[in-house]
Order: sequence, then C-alpha cells, then structure tokens
Amino acid sequence: MSSRHPTPEQIRIQDVLTALGNAKRLAIVRVLDRGGEHTCGSLIGDVSKSTMTHHWRVLRDSGVIWQRPSGRENLLSLRREDLDRRYPGLLDSVLVGARTDEESEEEGERGK
Amino acid sequence: MSSRHPTPEQIRIQDVLTALGNAKRLAIVRVLDRGGEHTCGSLIGDVSKSTMTHHWRVLRDSGVIWQRPSGRENLLSLRREDLDRRYPGLLDSVLVGARTDEESEEEGERGK
Repeated sequence: MSSRHPTPEQIRIQDVLTALGNAKRLAIVRVLDRGGEHTCGSLIGDVSKSTMTHHWRVLRDSGVIWQRPSGRENLLSLRREDLDRRYPGLLDSVLVGARTDEESEEEGERGK
Repeated sequence: MSSRHPTPEQIRIQDVLTALGNAKRLAIVRVLDRGGEHTCGSLIGDVSKSTMTHHWRVLRDSGVIWQRPSGRENLLSLRREDLDRRYPGLLDSVLVGARTDEESEEEGERGK
C-alpha cells in the first residue's frame, strides 16, 4: 500500500469525521461498505474527475479507504477492520444514520 | 429556542460529522458532554472571538448544541437526547474515539 495511507495508529477521528461529513464521500463509503474492491470509474457520479480525485484523497489520507493501483485504474476498498478496531461502532452508526436521513427525506418528499 | 436550531427531523448526519470533524469543536463537545449549560466565555480557548462565533454557529446549525441567550452571554449545552435518538451510538463512539486518539498521542509523546 502507498505510504500516503496512514497506519491504524496514525488515524485521527477528526479526519475520519471530516471525510465522512460530505454527501458525496458518504455515498461512496456506503457503496464500498457492500464489500470488495471497486474501480474509481464505477463510483464516479455526475462530478468532474478533479473533484473525485479530491474525494479519493480525503478518504485515503484520513484512513477511511485503501486505494490500490491496478493497471490504468485505482481499486478502492473500505478500511472497515482498521476503523472498527480503532473506533468501535463509529462506522456502523454513521451508515445507519445515513439511512435514517434518507428515510426522513423520502418522508419529506411524500408529505409535499 | 431560536429558529436557527434545526428540529430533530432536520438534522443531517453529514452536518453533524462536519461539525464534530474539527479538533476545537470536538474539544468543546467533550466539555459539554459532562452535562449542564456552559457560557461561551468559559469554553473559549486561545482563539479569537470571531473564530469561536463561527464554531458556535457550525455546532448549533448542525443540531449538535443548543445555544440560549442569557443576559449578555449565550449558554450552550449538548443536544445529546436528540442526537442519541436520531443517531444511536454515534456520539458515544465519537467521544470514545477522541479519547483513543488522545492516548495514541500521549504514547507518541512518551515514545519520543
């Protein structure tokens, strides 16, 4: 792995929270949480390549994801074991919270 | 309470994570977690008033704290019940995580 990835001991909660505190990055983490490695290309939505490159960097440098070069692409995966060991329950409560918000928004839409 | 406080249903996890993803704001939340209301003055550290005003706003607008005027001051308290109900386990895992980081840093200092 690249040296740009922090070791588990170098991970800091404010960096993890900042990384997760963005709708786009949180959406990416929710996809990665399904498991396995994903190409950057498969995760790119309707934003520019430079914006996505910024998001990968924030996620990687904070310790939230692994980023591994493979041919012309990078493969991304969630550092779930490292995060769960260092911050027990954090990732799960965030992922459940993201679903709670989604349900609130759907209810809001239906109420219109 | 001021209308600038979101209702529990208006709270969004990315705003809460962004609010907590800052060393100064996280330190404030750790103090507020001891309970009760605190004056802004008692929580101000070595940063300017305008910086602190920004931090109060981020914490309040995200739904993390209540801010209540009292005389010339504002009284601040943690919205723990609202946060715990909406995002079970989130605040606790963040606060435990902040202690984990602190211990890592102390060990790092001792190792020098």
